[in-house]
Amino acid sequence: MNLTGELLIGGGATRGAQGEIRGVNPATGEVLDPAFGGATLQNLEAACAQAAAAFQPYRALPYETRATFLEAIAEHIEALGDDLIVRVMAESGLPRARLEGERGRTTGQLRLFASVLRDGGFLEARIDPAMPDRKPMARPDLRLRNIPLGPVAVFGASNFPLAFSVAGGDTASALAAGCPVVVKAHPAHPGTSEMIGRAIQSAVAACGLHPGVFSLIHDSGFEISQALVADPRIKAAGFTGSRRGGLALAAIAQGRPEPIPFYAEMSSINPVLLFPAALAARGPAIARDFVGALTLGAGQFCTNPGLILALDGPELDGFLTAAEEALSPVPAATMLTPAISRVYADGVRALAQTPVVKQVAVGQEALQNQGQAALFGVSGADFLAHPHLAEEVFGAASIVVRCADLAELHKVVVALEGQLTIALHMDEADHVLAADLLPDLELKAGRILVNGFGTGVEVAHAMVHGGPFPATSDSRVTSVGTLAIARFLRPVSYQNLPGALLPDELKAENPLGLVRRVDGKLNLI
Amino acid sequence: MNLTGELLIGGGATRGAQGEIRGVNPATGEVLDPAFGGATLQNLEAACAQAAAAFQPYRALPYETRATFLEAIAEHIEALGDDLIVRVMAESGLPRARLEGERGRTTGQLRLFASVLRDGGFLEARIDPAMPDRKPMARPDLRLRNIPLGPVAVFGASNFPLAFSVAGGDTASALAAGCPVVVKAHPAHPGTSEMIGRAIQSAVAACGLHPGVFSLIHDSGFEISQALVADPRIKAAGFTGSRRGGLALAAIAQGRPEPIPFYAEMSSINPVLLFPAALAARGPAIARDFVGALTLGAGQFCTNPGLILALDGPELDGFLTAAEEALSPVPAATMLTPAISRVYADGVRALAQTPVVKQVAVGQEALQNQGQAALFGVSGADFLAHPHLAEEVFGAASIVVRCADLAELHKVVVALEGQLTIALHMDEADHVLAADLLPDLELKAGRILVNGFGTGVEVAHAMVHGGPFPATSDSRVTSVGTLAIARFLRPVSYQNLPGALLPDELKAENPLGLVRRVDGKLNLI
Repeated sequence: MNLTGELLIGGGATRGAQGEIRGVNPATGEVLDPAFGGATLQNLEAACAQAAAAFQPYRALPYETRATFLEAIAEHIEALGDDLIVRVMAESGLPRARLEGERGRTTGQLRLFASVLRDGGFLEARIDPAMPDRKPMARPDLRLRNIPLGPVAVFGASNFPLAFSVAGGDTASALAAGCPVVVKAHPAHPGTSEMIGRAIQSAVAACGLHPGVFSLIHDSGFEISQALVADPRIKAAGFTGSRRGGLALAAIAQGRPEPIPFYAEMSSINPVLLFPAALAARGPAIARDFVGALTLGAGQFCTNPGLILALDGPELDGFLTAAEEALSPVPAATMLTPAISRVYADGVRALAQTPVVKQVAVGQEALQNQGQAALFGVSGADFLAHPHLAEEVFGAASIVVRCADLAELHKVVVALEGQLTIALHMDEADHVLAADLLPDLELKAGRILVNGFGTGVEVAHAMVHGGPFPATSDSRVTSVGTLAIARFLRPVSYQNLPGALLPDELKAENPLGLVRRVDGKLNLI
Repeated sequence: MNLTGELLIGGGATRGAQGEIRGVNPATGEVLDPAFGGATLQNLEAACAQAAAAFQPYRALPYETRATFLEAIAEHIEALGDDLIVRVMAESGLPRARLEGERGRTTGQLRLFASVLRDGGFLEARIDPAMPDRKPMARPDLRLRNIPLGPVAVFGASNFPLAFSVAGGDTASALAAGCPVVVKAHPAHPGTSEMIGRAIQSAVAACGLHPGVFSLIHDSGFEISQALVADPRIKAAGFTGSRRGGLALAAIAQGRPEPIPFYAEMSSINPVLLFPAALAARGPAIARDFVGALTLGAGQFCTNPGLILALDGPELDGFLTAAEEALSPVPAATMLTPAISRVYADGVRALAQTPVVKQVAVGQEALQNQGQAALFGVSGADFLAHPHLAEEVFGAASIVVRCADLAELHKVVVALEGQLTIALHMDEADHVLAADLLPDLELKAGRILVNGFGTGVEVAHAMVHGGPFPATSDSRVTSVGTLAIARFLRPVSYQNLPGALLPDELKAENPLGLVRRVDGKLNLI
């Protein structure tokens, strides 16, 4: 595909006049062609107007048409072929295998939402039939279904140029919900964004949809992002990025004349608990797996294990020795952008210079735009006394907290901020202790996992990629998996609406064949 | 019951030392005994500490125990007998029949949530079984269920001393979800609040629960409410009241170090659309019903019809003549508090003095603490030009908007703020026009109802008592009906958790007999 550097607005393409954005190959420092024009406020206005115009016709489509549209997006992404992978590699420094996997995840996600649309469970259809003879008052006929919120703003993420960006989970779930989408591309991968954006535009055209259902704008500053969240036609937003960026945009979303839901996935250190029996039985093996998870993708995953909690003692020493052995030879890895590698280096330096923190091991030294893996240690008491040690350092850095006893371990668990994941390494002999801790752990994370690490987020029905603040801005939802569609829906109740006017979801003859809750009971077909 | 004027904190009773609050009989002006001590920050601290201590033991209870507890609350409220009704009448000026009905609604609501607990659908149990042989990567075992958010703050409402107050819908749904509750009583009915609070305390004791599961505090200012929402142990809040109060507390909830969901039901004028055929066929009959709904309970319902939209013409004149005839003899009615009647009188005066607004009819003159019903008229163009005319005047006041044509009617609909309800009066000949308008109407309200008025909110499975801002602070939820429980839940995903550690909801043998979504498909038992 010939990249033009244009904004994609409502089926068309137009050159942004607000400065220039270019991809940079972090592995080589090469500045990539073409130059992308940044959006002006007028461009943004056009994109939001298009999205608003598309909303009613788009949500009125049969769910089958929406499902076909999502599948068409997946097909058009696949049709980009290897050009796509080559461009993402150049813009992100990520390796081919990872990106091919991420592409599969992205298209699989779109197809999964197509199946969600065909299932219809997300509509929450409910019918409470009238009871004209009820005393003291007749009960009216009440029927409920979910409808989409309206146009949605999506912010592309730096660390998943495909799966959390232009056609990522936020876009897929918003489009599935019936919401047009305005994507603000991440400035680190503008070319990838244009390629995916054009694939979506092609799918829109192939399906004969209103072109305003999708727009893509570029910007490398703050003004356009802020204006996008503030636009009165935008009714919800999805964001994956830094805590500071997420909170700044969330404040705008809440401060609007009409506040809107702002779904930010922001920061998580994904604690790993090593239980005593597992540590004694296979500490060194866990250590090697841990180093693999820590350094995977230069540690640039939301679910990267940034904290290890364990009881101090010789078993933990054995774990640390093995971790050191595994980590020391790990080559430094190219990070996504020069800025990310700088911030990572600063974060590691700050940890190293913290008096109570001891360096356990480092990987091989970093060259240009690379990150050097690093593992630190601290006592439980010192960790509790220095809350900033629990702040995310985005990259392959982690801290081992040596807890003096179970009471201190429990204190550390209770003091944790909200997390995306908590991983538990345990054997059967640890079950009693784990059962004791689980009630507190559940309050701290969206996902609890056993004998593994949080990296590798399955796109599934039972996935929660979310968690209490500050992991996300809204612990009631997930940004990965089929439940993600719920973020863009709201219920509407219809009372005594004549049958001819009822939406298909709620008609007596159930033309969509939905499972519905009738008088409180699920009715299978 | 002998009222003591004490705060009810974690099973005990203690005198608040922060000033004095007294009920006032709005019908007579009589100041009622006893004096209630307002809560200090220390009292609030104790209540929140109790709620936090109760959370884990309370949420760990079998759902059947929680259900029995809700039923026990209903029984203890009924056991208060006529004393309760007499006290509410004295504190609210509301008539006996209305309050007996409201009591039935309150106890019925508690029992409905007991049935929700026994059904278990609110848990959203999902299982994606492991696929060890999947390529390129094995799929882990993933299981999901909802858990409660944590202690919840509930703010009693002035206009429903029973159904939206101490044991109202917010409390019932939070307790059902597994959340301890700290209620801030509305200062207009402290005695009612104590009676209901003691009934809940008795139910807590009878069921052998942790006493911190419920506390009740009194306050007539802002400091305690603000501190309650700001307390780090409180994880969500429910509020029914004014737009100003709701927005002020919502800002505190969002500005906390850990922001929390704040569910405010705030303001709604509940537009009524009169379609041409219905207006022509039975305008005067609709007018009489409308006046009944408008003046019911002195117009002090969240769903009171505050706006009529119709096409100008002789049919609308007929409607107005009939409305005038029906409204003129309506006696003024005692309002809930002296302050509410003052604010209502100010609001009506402001409408009457607005040059573009014409007075259509008024009811009988108001005496002390009463509200005089009032109906006004305005052209569609003037209504659009004066947005403040769409602001709620809490009480029996309404405005008829005479739209010049369908285009203007449509403009008025699109310009509406979010509403709890929109009522449509239509005949079969109006269906085509209604079908045209429905897509826009759905975006404006939580409930669309036909040939009736929004008053009389059914507590049911398919009810939505909610709607876009400013009707509520969060259009994705309802505060009435079984879906209200969702406000206090969040999903947790368990990955490869050993069977012995799985919660009952997710065990292979399904001991709770739940309908679960297995690999995306609902499994009926």
